Amino acid sequence: MKLITAKDISTLKFSELFQDAVRYLEADLGRWQEFKKSSRHAVHFPHGVFELMPVADGAHYTYKYVNAHPSNPEHGKLSIVALGMLADVQSGYPQLVADMTLLTAVRTAAMSAIAAKHLARTDSSVFGIIGCGAQSEFQVYAMRQLFPPTEIRYFDRDAEAMEKFERNLAHSGITLTRCKNADEVVRTADIITTCICEKAKVRLFAYDAVKGRDVFINAIGGDCPGKTELDPEILRNARIVVEFYEQTKKEGEIQNLAGETACDEMWEIVQGKKAGRTDADRIIVFDSVGFALADFSMLRMLHERGIGVDVALLPEPHNPKNLFALFR
Amino acid sequence: MKLITAKDISTLKFSELFQDAVRYLEADLGRWQEFKKSSRHAVHFPHGVFELMPVADGAHYTYKYVNAHPSNPEHGKLSIVALGMLADVQSGYPQLVADMTLLTAVRTAAMSAIAAKHLARTDSSVFGIIGCGAQSEFQVYAMRQLFPPTEIRYFDRDAEAMEKFERNLAHSGITLTRCKNADEVVRTADIITTCICEKAKVRLFAYDAVKGRDVFINAIGGDCPGKTELDPEILRNARIVVEFYEQTKKEGEIQNLAGETACDEMWEIVQGKKAGRTDADRIIVFDSVGFALADFSMLRMLHERGIGVDVALLPEPHNPKNLFALFR
Repeated sequence: MKLITAKDISTLKFSELFQDAVRYLEADLGRWQEFKKSSRHAVHFPHGVFELMPVADGAHYTYKYVNAHPSNPEHGKLSIVALGMLADVQSGYPQLVADMTLLTAVRTAAMSAIAAKHLARTDSSVFGIIGCGAQSEFQVYAMRQLFPPTEIRYFDRDAEAMEKFERNLAHSGITLTRCKNADEVVRTADIITTCICEKAKVRLFAYDAVKGRDVFINAIGGDCPGKTELDPEILRNARIVVEFYEQTKKEGEIQNLAGETACDEMWEIVQGKKAGRTDADRIIVFDSVGFALADFSMLRMLHERGIGVDVALLPEPHNPKNLFALFR
Repeated sequence: MKLITAKDISTLKFSELFQDAVRYLEADLGRWQEFKKSSRHAVHFPHGVFELMPVADGAHYTYKYVNAHPSNPEHGKLSIVALGMLADVQSGYPQLVADMTLLTAVRTAAMSAIAAKHLARTDSSVFGIIGCGAQSEFQVYAMRQLFPPTEIRYFDRDAEAMEKFERNLAHSGITLTRCKNADEVVRTADIITTCICEKAKVRLFAYDAVKGRDVFINAIGGDCPGKTELDPEILRNARIVVEFYEQTKKEGEIQNLAGETACDEMWEIVQGKKAGRTDADRIIVFDSVGFALADFSMLRMLHERGIGVDVALLPEPHNPKNLFALFR
């Protein structure tokens, strides 16, 4: 079994890693029907959530453990850490255990890139982002692979987070426009990514701020019951795309809409069963909560790269029915 | 974060490990109401199952990953391997990842011991076991801590498994009676443990073989939809005790009974809210499927022992909101 640490991953060449992430994820969305899928399992506390995200195809079973503790950064800790496991379906034996903290940010950005490719206007050039936390630069990176942005507009309640964001993008050649609030961010943005950490039903900006415009809203922060970012009026006036409806209905922005919501699932668009952006579309919301398949793709990528160190975690009795003998 | 291998665990003194396992598990059953509980998550394939078993109290969140692949031993592999994780509830950070293959056998035996203490006749002396696989000697060990057995009666379709079982118990001083079938095992047994691996609805022995006798049936092998070991007629004529009804109804022997089944949960007996065996009880079945709390107890025990090696699995950015910086 391989143990793959965050250091093993962070020393990979990022541009290749990201390209691979998109490639593996697109390939897996392309064979969506082959997977055994379910909503993730969540244990909620007032201050944070603990999630398990399993999925399997005929060759591999994977799960990711991930938390979300919005106040962790106040204590010098990451809001979100994660670890993943990949097992061989034939035997059930784990083949790798890996840090998934970095790859959670990478796969979320890869999914955003796939969504934007299909759902944003091809002439998008102003990128807005609300929330300048750990995922923000990954999101900017994803969009830059698709569109040459002329301007990035951004806002975070935490001024230090904005300063960090600015330092990271100082040499990007893109105009950086620090905004006073979310409304100001979205006013002229073509692509809007919402990624705040607060666990509450907030309305980052009013429907009026985007009304009638052909914007793509990449809503990735609302991902938990009781944690949403968008004015429901926006949803009522948008085409909505999700990862896996059954899970998103409980966790995504659409939890605020009564009854069932008409949505496309991203795999339908990747497979060409549903159209991407058409002339008839105005606001399109990708109500992204994070689905197990994206983690599967990353774990499959790690497995095929063969990185990490071998560890003998499991017992290896001479006779598999003589487990007890190991204790003597 | 600690990484705890099977070797780290197998080098512990078994008698102390088992005593501790019972002690931790009894303590946790004693505060059952403090836990956030749910049925485990399972992904089924024709040849095996993949399970995730999460649970949390106010201090720790744990999960166990475990498979069950009955035909693995034909390829020199264990039917069941497992790994577990314990995280700090305050931060969500993993504190240990451990092999749970050995401790799955240990905790199952510890749970059997707790059940037998409350539900078997105190003068039990003949122990029957059907299935001489990886868990069988752990089960015998558990019962020997409570009762001085005069005889062990056993059967397995696999003669080599019985030979291994006999070698392991050769110096126990207990009469070993190899039986030709399960009926012969149970005929004079006071405590009957069923632990075969086959994924099917089998009837190991007929109700008539135990009818009217004060036996304790420790049914641990039927633990999956479509995988049961007992004649439902036995269940209709027995007092039934389970770990967590919501899960057992789907996975245990009682899946074969229509509608809801009147059961006691083990914690109720441990806490004295329900009686253990009374004079009115004849057959008592512990319909044990394996519940996440027992794994929690083992992971808590490992955590408090502080064994294993430190590994830096997760990223440790200087600024928790500057995850992207780790890639440069």
